[in-house]
Amino acid sequence: MNYYVALDVGGSKILGALFDTKGRIVDTKKVKTFAAKGTDFVYDQIKLVIDSLIKDRKKIKGIGVIVPGIVFNHDYVEFCPNVPFDHFPLGMLLREEYDLPVTLGNDVSLAVYGEWKSQDREIEHAVGLFVGTGVGGGLILNGKLYSGKGGAGELGHMMMVPHGAGCGCGNEGCLEAYASKSGLLRRIKSAQIRGRESMLYQFLKSDGSMITSTAFRESYLAGDPLAVELINDASYFLGLAVANYINILHPDLFIFGGGIMEALHEVMLPRIKQIAQTNAMPALSHDIELTMSQLGDNAGIVGSFHQIFEAVDHA
Amino acid sequence: MNYYVALDVGGSKILGALFDTKGRIVDTKKVKTFAAKGTDFVYDQIKLVIDSLIKDRKKIKGIGVIVPGIVFNHDYVEFCPNVPFDHFPLGMLLREEYDLPVTLGNDVSLAVYGEWKSQDREIEHAVGLFVGTGVGGGLILNGKLYSGKGGAGELGHMMMVPHGAGCGCGNEGCLEAYASKSGLLRRIKSAQIRGRESMLYQFLKSDGSMITSTAFRESYLAGDPLAVELINDASYFLGLAVANYINILHPDLFIFGGGIMEALHEVMLPRIKQIAQTNAMPALSHDIELTMSQLGDNAGIVGSFHQIFEAVDHA
Repeated sequence: MNYYVALDVGGSKILGALFDTKGRIVDTKKVKTFAAKGTDFVYDQIKLVIDSLIKDRKKIKGIGVIVPGIVFNHDYVEFCPNVPFDHFPLGMLLREEYDLPVTLGNDVSLAVYGEWKSQDREIEHAVGLFVGTGVGGGLILNGKLYSGKGGAGELGHMMMVPHGAGCGCGNEGCLEAYASKSGLLRRIKSAQIRGRESMLYQFLKSDGSMITSTAFRESYLAGDPLAVELINDASYFLGLAVANYINILHPDLFIFGGGIMEALHEVMLPRIKQIAQTNAMPALSHDIELTMSQLGDNAGIVGSFHQIFEAVDHA
Repeated sequence: MNYYVALDVGGSKILGALFDTKGRIVDTKKVKTFAAKGTDFVYDQIKLVIDSLIKDRKKIKGIGVIVPGIVFNHDYVEFCPNVPFDHFPLGMLLREEYDLPVTLGNDVSLAVYGEWKSQDREIEHAVGLFVGTGVGGGLILNGKLYSGKGGAGELGHMMMVPHGAGCGCGNEGCLEAYASKSGLLRRIKSAQIRGRESMLYQFLKSDGSMITSTAFRESYLAGDPLAVELINDASYFLGLAVANYINILHPDLFIFGGGIMEALHEVMLPRIKQIAQTNAMPALSHDIELTMSQLGDNAGIVGSFHQIFEAVDHA
């Protein structure tokens, strides 16, 4: 049996897995990224994970890597805000280092690809929206992962409100600024400054840097008015975004994932669907389907495995 | 030599052309649509055009038809606001009537396809935006016309402003409500009511129903402040839309057409490009290309010819 290595390089951890040719995970390895220690250190962490997964070099047919950023041509990372890999030729370097085929992808695009591959029916066109710290996306069009000139699928950066709320990408009014944890955190801080009461504050880290998805769930289910307002607003903007994607791409399926959606999908999915159906063109919106991701944290490496497997297998 | 018939069924006229297998137009026929006379009358007008173009039935290999609406499966028209063809099985009926292969498409999607086919270089991914009475769109993704489940490419109905200006589609805040002639007309009337001065009013039809693209050009070039404001605003929203399409689809090329763009592209294209580059993600926007349509009113029938030709030729 031959094997493939798939790696999910995240801002805080690097998750690696060894896949057999049937797509089964036979070994895993996880280390911290230590992003603050710089490019070389993180690159060494990646090699450490690969080396620990490769027992018999001759049986390894390729390496798939995903990063939370924009990648071009499986060769280099163009833009990667949470891992120090801007303009870094990660794909080329690993290809040289291991003398193996290497594919490079965006983490959420490949997570959507992994989810799509795991559907038990044929879906031609799917749009994935993963709502966590940011809002990432992925497009499956005509039965293939779509990447355009390389960086397509930045679905969280659809501008929804001209001159709207500031977004981590530097622009204003993006979906991510309204529906992601970062966007919600900004509104929590603003409410706190204005003296509004909410149980959400007790969940803020002491440095105010982040809040967990579970905190939103607990506060929402306890009926905390601010939490309810924030989650309803996030669902509203996600619903408008879905309406737009229906009008633009008329897909078969929307796949949702990410911490916020996993914590509150019972509440959010019905509202997103209702807003989408109200706002999309009626001729296109009557039979849209929204579903939750099934693979959890493994979606990305599963997608990355399929990407490298197909690149080698079809070569 | 074999031949194909292509028809562009518009709200005011039906344009038909006979194409040879090299894609050359060898005959044309134009009649009024008389949309107000109802479905049967318009269907007879379509047959009149086809019959006048078909001299030798045995040499005709197929018929391509486009309509200004949403079509599914080359069989029926789902939604068509300016031609009385809602839920009308136009493709099925023509197929039966002439015993020939028939393709059915959206007029702007196929116009974009025609323009794309006429490029003298290989473009993998193109987004077309046609700005006239409405804003229509078309998507070429991975070297193919993309239609999703059938109705994709309604690019004018990307919601840009939550609870924004009313749009002809029934929704609010669509790109079309800000950048199309209908959207601009609404603002002209509003300015007139408020007593603002503008030379645009002299171009309004007596029933206030429409205004020509030339009227916008003349007023803009004369420095009429309202015309300048309206065209700048339309360019702004088109620029934001282009930014969104860059982030979502990362295409090679944007193709612009339609009356407003044809009348004012020297002014609008540079502004659209500047707004797009300022608002799209920097990693994706540095080398975007915007171009104007080259085929004018023939773009749709050229695209429709290619669609029926490929359907028959590849069958």
